[in-house]
Amino acid sequence: MISTNEILPESYASYRREVEAELKRIIGSKPSALYDMLRYHLGWQDAPRHARGKRSGKFTRPVLCLLSCQAVGGNTSQILPAAASLELIHNFSLIHDDIEDASCERHHRPTVWKLWGQPQAINAGDSMFALAYLALLKLREKGIAETKVMRAIQVLGEACLELCEGQYLDIAYEARGDVTTEDYLRMITKKTAALMAASTSIGACLVTEDEGIVSCLHEFGKSLGLAYQIHDDILGIWGAEEKIGKSVKSDISQKKKTLPVVYGLENSRGKDKQRLEKLYSQESIEGESVTEVVEILNRSGARGYAQDLEQQYYHQALTKLEATGLDPSRRVPLSEAARFLMECDY
Amino acid sequence: MISTNEILPESYASYRREVEAELKRIIGSKPSALYDMLRYHLGWQDAPRHARGKRSGKFTRPVLCLLSCQAVGGNTSQILPAAASLELIHNFSLIHDDIEDASCERHHRPTVWKLWGQPQAINAGDSMFALAYLALLKLREKGIAETKVMRAIQVLGEACLELCEGQYLDIAYEARGDVTTEDYLRMITKKTAALMAASTSIGACLVTEDEGIVSCLHEFGKSLGLAYQIHDDILGIWGAEEKIGKSVKSDISQKKKTLPVVYGLENSRGKDKQRLEKLYSQESIEGESVTEVVEILNRSGARGYAQDLEQQYYHQALTKLEATGLDPSRRVPLSEAARFLMECDY
Repeated sequence: MISTNEILPESYASYRREVEAELKRIIGSKPSALYDMLRYHLGWQDAPRHARGKRSGKFTRPVLCLLSCQAVGGNTSQILPAAASLELIHNFSLIHDDIEDASCERHHRPTVWKLWGQPQAINAGDSMFALAYLALLKLREKGIAETKVMRAIQVLGEACLELCEGQYLDIAYEARGDVTTEDYLRMITKKTAALMAASTSIGACLVTEDEGIVSCLHEFGKSLGLAYQIHDDILGIWGAEEKIGKSVKSDISQKKKTLPVVYGLENSRGKDKQRLEKLYSQESIEGESVTEVVEILNRSGARGYAQDLEQQYYHQALTKLEATGLDPSRRVPLSEAARFLMECDY
Repeated sequence: MISTNEILPESYASYRREVEAELKRIIGSKPSALYDMLRYHLGWQDAPRHARGKRSGKFTRPVLCLLSCQAVGGNTSQILPAAASLELIHNFSLIHDDIEDASCERHHRPTVWKLWGQPQAINAGDSMFALAYLALLKLREKGIAETKVMRAIQVLGEACLELCEGQYLDIAYEARGDVTTEDYLRMITKKTAALMAASTSIGACLVTEDEGIVSCLHEFGKSLGLAYQIHDDILGIWGAEEKIGKSVKSDISQKKKTLPVVYGLENSRGKDKQRLEKLYSQESIEGESVTEVVEILNRSGARGYAQDLEQQYYHQALTKLEATGLDPSRRVPLSEAARFLMECDY
């Protein structure tokens, strides 16, 4: 696997810096202790008695938003608050997800609820949610027309609602033994792809009035989101622990119905099928049982199936990008970013 | 205490019906099981194995919003989505508060987290938050100008952030022994008064461009919110359990730093002071210790102090209402609503 720094386009890196600067303008200097939780989560400051992590987020969604803006000929610095807003929504959902999944670590550091307790962590997520909408309103000061700002609020709001619906399914599936790949795809379409689609769509609709292009970029983000989630599912079972920043097998021990697991439960045969069903009917999966699950999944061909489906969605995304009819030179940064996400190993 | 039905102005009752109808248009028929949690919380449907409660919410915030709109000469049916949005924000915060406080009952029924578990309850609150913003966007279809809709989104967003800041303080105060009445007032200004102020302010700013009137109605809502919270604190210690719908003494057993308690800790003397401090340094306060706290508070004069302060803020609210310069006949529905809230015993 190529190191991320080698393949990272230069514009991608500079966008990340700009998004981080915008986020710092939004929550960087707020004095209340409430915002210490947000700054800690974003990797900007230490928690009492805990060292600062080395890395902050990948800013996947804001960068896609800015690249989409650039592709349609927009001025990216004008829509930075929208890019920041997408990152805030993503992080609000991470803070709440960590509570919901009882995850103790993220990026090699204790999660917010682990340090401040669940009540304050719920509250920290809520405040990030509120900040995301306030950030969008800042677009007015950047000279974006009100009609366009309203459109962005609408797209973001609908994506947030889908995110909650997807999260509902994700949690509900943990207790269900009969989840199909179709169920799984419905879940990740809402939980992951909706916000990715909102990112590329907002980047475009704040600039152009060409609904055809906006719609193609929306679909590009959606397909890319599906590929990205499947990629993440694969890493969650077969990735390298030190890169992901959390226990690799936590998806398995939490009985998450990720694509390889859903495929394995549907397609393994005989003793393997019985054993896998038995393991997934337990309260949780621990120790050697985790290794056993991976072995059964290996035998079922789940990894190859998931990789094929990831590639399908990735190519679907590229097709949608082409369908925008934009000049190839305008599309390259977005297709490069998509390739980067598919090659990313954390 | 007068029965609420006797003093309830007719317009107030009809506004409640209209707000409920608008809320049902927003979330009434959504098929996903996620929305069952919201409908259950709002009192519209049963949970599996649990009977439906007899009452739904008081709709205090939406009604204040509509009365404020009416006071400045607006058409209330045009701004119903804004009124509904305020109720959604209030309820999102209740669902999350119940998790944060580990409260098992609300309105004589099990809380959402108690029935569906914490993860799905966090998610239910989040989806209500998302719906609130989408509701505001519906104002465009009602013919409200975009500039005004944006203003409402700004006011609501700022109030949500204040609400989180207030909630942060509320939780943080539980562990602190040195909370002053000044600290307490800062907390409820954010936690309760900000959303009440947003309610009266949004009702007005969607209609009039007279910033002086909007500002006075904002201040009216804020002072009324302070009085309302103090009223609620008093009921939380000396109210009748069957009317409030939760264990009367839960504020005490959870060591909530409500006004009477903060006053008692600051102003009791000798043995009473020592005993109160000792009780509030424990992990929780149970059984006979709760009764003991109430007795000490009675002796400290906390009830009278709180009632006086409630009255002060109530009269401050009425002064702000008068300062709008609106015709007395236009102000009466708002002052009647304020009086109703102060006489309300649940």
